Amino acid sequence: MTTDVSDPNEIDQRVFPPTARRDPRTGELLLGAVRTSALIAQYGSPLYVLDEDVARSRARRIRAALEAEAERIGTTATVYYAGKALLCVDVARWMAEEGLAIDVASGGELAVALAAGVEPSRIGFHGNNKSEQEIGRAIAAGVGTIVIDSEIETERIAAAAKAAGVTQRVRLRVNSGVHASTHDYLATAHEDQKFGQPLRDAPRLVAAILAHDGLEFVGLHCHIGSQIFGTDGFRESARRLMRVYPELARLAGRSIPELNLGGGFGIAYTSAQAEDVPTIATVARELADMVADCAREFGVPVPHLAFEPGRVVVGPAGVTLYTVGTTKPVPLAGSDAAGPADLGYGERLYVSVDGGMSDNARPALYGADYQVRIANRTSDAAAALVRVVGKHCESGDVVVQRDVIPEDVRPGDTLVVAATGAYCWSLASNYNYLPRPPVVAVSGRGVRLIVHGETEDDLLAKSVSWRPGGAVHTASSQDVVHRPSSGR
Amino acid sequence: MTTDVSDPNEIDQRVFPPTARRDPRTGELLLGAVRTSALIAQYGSPLYVLDEDVARSRARRIRAALEAEAERIGTTATVYYAGKALLCVDVARWMAEEGLAIDVASGGELAVALAAGVEPSRIGFHGNNKSEQEIGRAIAAGVGTIVIDSEIETERIAAAAKAAGVTQRVRLRVNSGVHASTHDYLATAHEDQKFGQPLRDAPRLVAAILAHDGLEFVGLHCHIGSQIFGTDGFRESARRLMRVYPELARLAGRSIPELNLGGGFGIAYTSAQAEDVPTIATVARELADMVADCAREFGVPVPHLAFEPGRVVVGPAGVTLYTVGTTKPVPLAGSDAAGPADLGYGERLYVSVDGGMSDNARPALYGADYQVRIANRTSDAAAALVRVVGKHCESGDVVVQRDVIPEDVRPGDTLVVAATGAYCWSLASNYNYLPRPPVVAVSGRGVRLIVHGETEDDLLAKSVSWRPGGAVHTASSQDVVHRPSSGR
Ligand SMILES: Cc1ncc(COP(=O)(O)O)c(C=O)c1O
Ligand SMILES: Cc1ncc(COP(=O)(O)O)c(C=O)c1O
Repeated sequence: MTTDVSDPNEIDQRVFPPTARRDPRTGELLLGAVRTSALIAQYGSPLYVLDEDVARSRARRIRAALEAEAERIGTTATVYYAGKALLCVDVARWMAEEGLAIDVASGGELAVALAAGVEPSRIGFHGNNKSEQEIGRAIAAGVGTIVIDSEIETERIAAAAKAAGVTQRVRLRVNSGVHASTHDYLATAHEDQKFGQPLRDAPRLVAAILAHDGLEFVGLHCHIGSQIFGTDGFRESARRLMRVYPELARLAGRSIPELNLGGGFGIAYTSAQAEDVPTIATVARELADMVADCAREFGVPVPHLAFEPGRVVVGPAGVTLYTVGTTKPVPLAGSDAAGPADLGYGERLYVSVDGGMSDNARPALYGADYQVRIANRTSDAAAALVRVVGKHCESGDVVVQRDVIPEDVRPGDTLVVAATGAYCWSLASNYNYLPRPPVVAVSGRGVRLIVHGETEDDLLAKSVSWRPGGAVHTASSQDVVHRPSSGR
Repeated sequence: MTTDVSDPNEIDQRVFPPTARRDPRTGELLLGAVRTSALIAQYGSPLYVLDEDVARSRARRIRAALEAEAERIGTTATVYYAGKALLCVDVARWMAEEGLAIDVASGGELAVALAAGVEPSRIGFHGNNKSEQEIGRAIAAGVGTIVIDSEIETERIAAAAKAAGVTQRVRLRVNSGVHASTHDYLATAHEDQKFGQPLRDAPRLVAAILAHDGLEFVGLHCHIGSQIFGTDGFRESARRLMRVYPELARLAGRSIPELNLGGGFGIAYTSAQAEDVPTIATVARELADMVADCAREFGVPVPHLAFEPGRVVVGPAGVTLYTVGTTKPVPLAGSDAAGPADLGYGERLYVSVDGGMSDNARPALYGADYQVRIANRTSDAAAALVRVVGKHCESGDVVVQRDVIPEDVRPGDTLVVAATGAYCWSLASNYNYLPRPPVVAVSGRGVRLIVHGETEDDLLAKSVSWRPGGAVHTASSQDVVHRPSSGR
């Protein structure tokens, strides 16, 4: 009835962590070397599981590929792990141990990187609206570079560097006008968006930076989008930036040493995407070639290259485990919502799990696709079209929009959703008072808790009038701690 | 240059809490009777502020209107406050004190309602995937009604009621096929969505419920959407449900006592919407008339009416205060993104604040509109087209897509965003390690903290390897708490 899948039990290692495999005897999924049933028995459900070996080896391979290609074109490269994708002390430490620098976007992310023992000079600090306090902390910590996002920030960072008596390396974030998504890119004269400065203003802004003794300008930065498969958008963006480098070099009286092309490299969330996603070796080669071409074209030295991948490093290393609560078939004939491929199935099986948009906001936020399998067993049952939904009171609370798994999926089954390592835990909420799940790291050696889960009491304790054990604390007039001096 | 606003300093009390007003002497905004500068000085920025008097009076007026109209058509009404919109112990207590019942959608929400001293019989328990443990807790607590969402749940609730030796009142959630949004509704034969059961299956499912001694069937439930301005969708949905009531009455051997029409009543997020949003009196009258008509048409007694409004109760009672960090003008000529009205302005002023999609996910999730004003002062400066953006590393991190405020808005100014009482705190995340702001209640009597804010250390402590003071804890082999019995 369908050509969707050959075997709806198959664990496609282009989408799931390559260490994930089924126990040949029981059919149960193993992550790292750990049985999924053992994970849930010990840490509960839902559960974020990150394969440490996979995260580390991806980080290593991405760094090696970009460094090797940089060397080929006569320069060097720094790979910053974009902590916004998933950051905790252990992940920051893994990344540093694998030779990556860390890109942080707030004082909190900076604190995590420092707590992990990341060398401060290997930290880049980002953000369109860093507070003066955050800038002060970053400079006091000795972060390697700060990315300037607006004119106001030039003055703030210069003042803070001066007060601290240091010279701070800075980059300038510009809008290249290029905005890339998975298969396309759009290039406009300028962008109507919050980040960065118009490219045509770069000379003026760089001149302002150069006027400050306490600031060392190292290059331009841009970030063109996310979940990008090709390199065409990067090429156009890099050309636009490097076209300005001769003028910036004249202003600086020296060549501009670095170029930061941001992150945004895509991953396969589904088997269908796996055919399209380029290897990191291909991406690295194409990026290096195009930078070398630009340097030749504009007559400048090949700059040191910086990248800030997040998703491509940790996304494929993570999965989420859920437990099925209920199932419900909905006939599709006569439904306006079902596409032609769906209608081939006659019905859609809604499978409700014990999490949802609180632990994975990406389907609700971006219409993101995911892939799902039954983790605790295999089955010979026919393939069913399923939609995995969460337990929130909201119809957009979907975890997996569309996939095909054995039709005998039933309450109590464990489901595994692939490629949830990036932007799931980091965007998680407590909607409907659902505690956020813990994150465990698996490897060939076992399992270890790396991020604490929450308890219901953690959430209840946010209410000022809540008391453990559920005793009611009625607000009294003493609770009114501030009396207004209103209007006068 | 624009007809957007007469005075960009104006606090439109159809959008802001009606108690919000400017100090006539200083121009500063007062909330309740409290100066916004005093709120920020004491509780920090960003800050959620909920006007207790407004929330209470809205709750009271909505209840009174629905009860009065129910009485007019010869029945009674229960108004459940939908806790998912914003729930903490104090808000639950206010609602109970104003005579509302409470609709909870998880064990956590149930615990909050109980901690607030809400009479258990006044609690309704919802959800498409209640765990057995949640069902057990709800029955043990003695909740008034449980809404059954699937066939599996009928058996689970019956088993739990039997084990507890009680009779549990239940409703059945059905899909009416009606889905309403602000200005429209769509009516299909059935819905391809996770909630509820197809209406045509209702007789079979109700028969299954009636077969259990431990279950008392009280009526059908549906919820047709959110932020709905008209009552046409409710009319169509109510008709579809009540058309089945004669058959259900035959099955039960008695008339069906209740009808629950869910929530979804809209509010004005902007002045432009304020013209369209109907008064609660109008909505209540139209709903009552249509139920009376249906009862007549289908020859059944007018049922007791239940509603579950969330947004319309607390949404307009809340605002969020932010502090401006940076501003950046972007010329709009040549921009593909700007609409014709925007182009009238020549440029868009991006105003970055110290929060964003972590404290208000609705613009990113739903493309929601909001209204913004400068809170700390008024200004005679010309009106500027602004977009208020947050400090997250994401271009979709927008708080207010489009509004018009004085063009001299500058770093350090306090901004107030209207109508953030519902679905902002409840959907908040810690993206980029931003601590969630506290919630304070203001009233004519002063201010009181009702939900604790988070500190950066609260967030760092989620990392298992983090130690206070920032000392690095390196994982040792002892941390591997579970050793796999993998594959054999
Ligand atoms: C400036 C910057 N760098 C890097 C990244 C990481 O992007 P990705 O995880 O898609 O590689 C982002 C993501 O938003 C970003 O804004
Ligand atoms: C079943 C149910 N009842 C009530 C509500 C509350 O809706 P609103 O806040 O729009 O009134 C919701 C919202 O999702 C819901 O799903």
